Amino acid sequence: MTDPATDPTLDPDMRSWVPGADGHPDFPVQNLPHCVFSTPGTGVRGGMRIGDWLLDLGLIAPRLQGEPGTAMALAAAAPLNAFLAAGPGARRMVREAAFAVLTLDQLRALGESALVPLADATLHLPCAIGDYTDFYAGIHHAVKVGSLFRPDNPLLPNYKHVPIGYHGRASSVVPSGTAIHRPHGQLAGPDGPRFAPAERLDIELELGLWIGTGNAPGTPIPIQQAADHIAGYCLLNDWSARDIQAWEYQPLGPFLAKSFATSISPYVITPDALRPFRTAQAARPDGDPAPLPYLGDPADQARGALALNLEVWLSTAAMRAAGLPETRISASDARHLYWTPAQMVAHHSSNGCNLRPGDLFGSGTISGPTPGSEGSLLEATNGSKAPLTLPGGETRTFLQSGDRITLRAWAEAPGHARIGFGDCTGEIVG
Amino acid sequence: MTDPATDPTLDPDMRSWVPGADGHPDFPVQNLPHCVFSTPGTGVRGGMRIGDWLLDLGLIAPRLQGEPGTAMALAAAAPLNAFLAAGPGARRMVREAAFAVLTLDQLRALGESALVPLADATLHLPCAIGDYTDFYAGIHHAVKVGSLFRPDNPLLPNYKHVPIGYHGRASSVVPSGTAIHRPHGQLAGPDGPRFAPAERLDIELELGLWIGTGNAPGTPIPIQQAADHIAGYCLLNDWSARDIQAWEYQPLGPFLAKSFATSISPYVITPDALRPFRTAQAARPDGDPAPLPYLGDPADQARGALALNLEVWLSTAAMRAAGLPETRISASDARHLYWTPAQMVAHHSSNGCNLRPGDLFGSGTISGPTPGSEGSLLEATNGSKAPLTLPGGETRTFLQSGDRITLRAWAEAPGHARIGFGDCTGEIVG
Repeated sequence: MTDPATDPTLDPDMRSWVPGADGHPDFPVQNLPHCVFSTPGTGVRGGMRIGDWLLDLGLIAPRLQGEPGTAMALAAAAPLNAFLAAGPGARRMVREAAFAVLTLDQLRALGESALVPLADATLHLPCAIGDYTDFYAGIHHAVKVGSLFRPDNPLLPNYKHVPIGYHGRASSVVPSGTAIHRPHGQLAGPDGPRFAPAERLDIELELGLWIGTGNAPGTPIPIQQAADHIAGYCLLNDWSARDIQAWEYQPLGPFLAKSFATSISPYVITPDALRPFRTAQAARPDGDPAPLPYLGDPADQARGALALNLEVWLSTAAMRAAGLPETRISASDARHLYWTPAQMVAHHSSNGCNLRPGDLFGSGTISGPTPGSEGSLLEATNGSKAPLTLPGGETRTFLQSGDRITLRAWAEAPGHARIGFGDCTGEIVG
Repeated sequence: MTDPATDPTLDPDMRSWVPGADGHPDFPVQNLPHCVFSTPGTGVRGGMRIGDWLLDLGLIAPRLQGEPGTAMALAAAAPLNAFLAAGPGARRMVREAAFAVLTLDQLRALGESALVPLADATLHLPCAIGDYTDFYAGIHHAVKVGSLFRPDNPLLPNYKHVPIGYHGRASSVVPSGTAIHRPHGQLAGPDGPRFAPAERLDIELELGLWIGTGNAPGTPIPIQQAADHIAGYCLLNDWSARDIQAWEYQPLGPFLAKSFATSISPYVITPDALRPFRTAQAARPDGDPAPLPYLGDPADQARGALALNLEVWLSTAAMRAAGLPETRISASDARHLYWTPAQMVAHHSSNGCNLRPGDLFGSGTISGPTPGSEGSLLEATNGSKAPLTLPGGETRTFLQSGDRITLRAWAEAPGHARIGFGDCTGEIVG
């Protein structure tokens, strides 16, 4: 792999001819995430975001020769599963070719012919998601929520050994902007359960991982190779109905409390773009048990975590009616994950379970250790005992109709261009 | 719907010209399940089992006119998701057309041109499974396993109110005959966990449900319509590593203990064929709480359960070497499910979760109330305290390398032809 310090596609001084791309807070030419989009009257197809434009890769691919042309054609086809399956080499070729088109004057005419204004496009799920798995790697979330559900036993004995996860619902993963219908469900009460709209509707701030190349059944992915199986990242809001969850989750875990909807940001942020922001794990303090060997690659522990700023923003219907802007209700960082993405991949496949290209992992809720960094309202309100006060004077424990939640993420580091993930938004209906 | 008593496709006196079909214990002309198969040198395609033959539906469809021809073309295409999506009307048309071809002398030449000997065919998964959900509706299993894990609290307070379920892994659902690789995983021990091959490898005897027409996100399926969304049934073996499960399952439920493999029988047994075997729920005794209204269709409770004989057979490598036949280790009945298939569909969609054609449900382990009817080895051996003794003198608590498990199911009732499901087999490797 190219060293981030000498990778020309990461050089912060590189300029693009695309209007507004240089200095774009999220999508300068150093980012170049993949997406699937459509415009009125056209089919869904693969693109890359640059500034406030999309590069329509199907118009670039025929102009490339050999392997880069083949890789670009895969990246131009929706859904992106086959492109993700093609692995890091194909992804790198597409990145370098797109970077050339977007930076070289002699390719500007070609590039301009393939630029679509973002405002004209609808963004879709980038992949057909075969399986969606949700991990629980945010240790501060696990401790805080555990202390609310099990005051005597907040962090279970397996937590620091096992990257805890569970299977989620793939059918209800939706792209940013999709309305979120408040679920009905069984809610416990003094006279027995009743079936009613959930009253404790919450968010979970998570990082999403896209699986690239998969593995054959019965053939685990070694930890040393696991990072190469991750094709990209997104933001993920694991909407959660806490009252449904509390009643249904024993003994087999969350089910209908989660399966009504999971929102993701539509861009596949590549490992290439994120390489400057790899860091050591922050959440495994000295004295914690060493990972078992199948999870214990020293290189992964030294550089396998990501330093990513994460934020949760809220806008209510009343705030919008009063002309008030959205307000930030949490700021966290992906460094607070106890397990790295590579450890999640190695663990998931360690029993021989086959991962497939386009599978989606959620990281688990990424709360920080301090007040104001909570990844869920359950935590932020201390189990609804301390409601949030919003601009305009409203208070919130859980989400109300018309509440609009936006997750945001960006990375910055000295000597590198800042890159962002794009919004992961959903508004509560009902 | 046609009354079973007057439905000509269920008439036990109807004869087929197919050699060996009449009196076939599992696949007489009254059954006619769907499947996906291939033969050497040909692609995968849709068929129906009759006797020890498969009817290649792609050779029949072009000879049919109008809607039946359209429906038959869907049933001829692999995977069967689009056919299942077409709903009960299309399924009925295909059943009636195939029944005519297989029973009428004047259509015999057409039928003979489309018959493939079963011995020449490889059977595949019938559908591309979007999501696999595993329920926990076998109450005798829940009580017995609960008493092993939580002696003081075997059946949790939610059990008789909520059709408990969890999301399973779709990628590792495999057709009968696929070898099952023993998983490695974290096993708890006195000196902390170690990563090793699972030692407590078990089975779970389940009924599988295939979802036909789905529902839009945010639009639950009413209980009164839920049965129409079930396109068929199969057998399902939810292989389970109990030692991995015991260590990993708190607080979010089973994960790697299950995701290495789930075996299913390859035939989609239709609700039409099973209509004579619908029965009242046996497992909800007087005094139990009434289902909440969203689960409480009286017609479903009166006739929504299935009377199905279920069996587990075991053959070990040593038994085969000694020329000993497989031995039956359990006999149960689908009537022991506490929740009906329709209740599972209504509950799953009650929060607005969208089901998609080709989704697979497992019923949960179907144990009976008496010794010899256990759906898992964990139960049959009373938590491995009472090993099974096999022909030839071997004993078993959990599965050994070379052990071959076969699930079987059949239905019979006075005045109706007996029909069967076909084997669900898997042999342990490693």
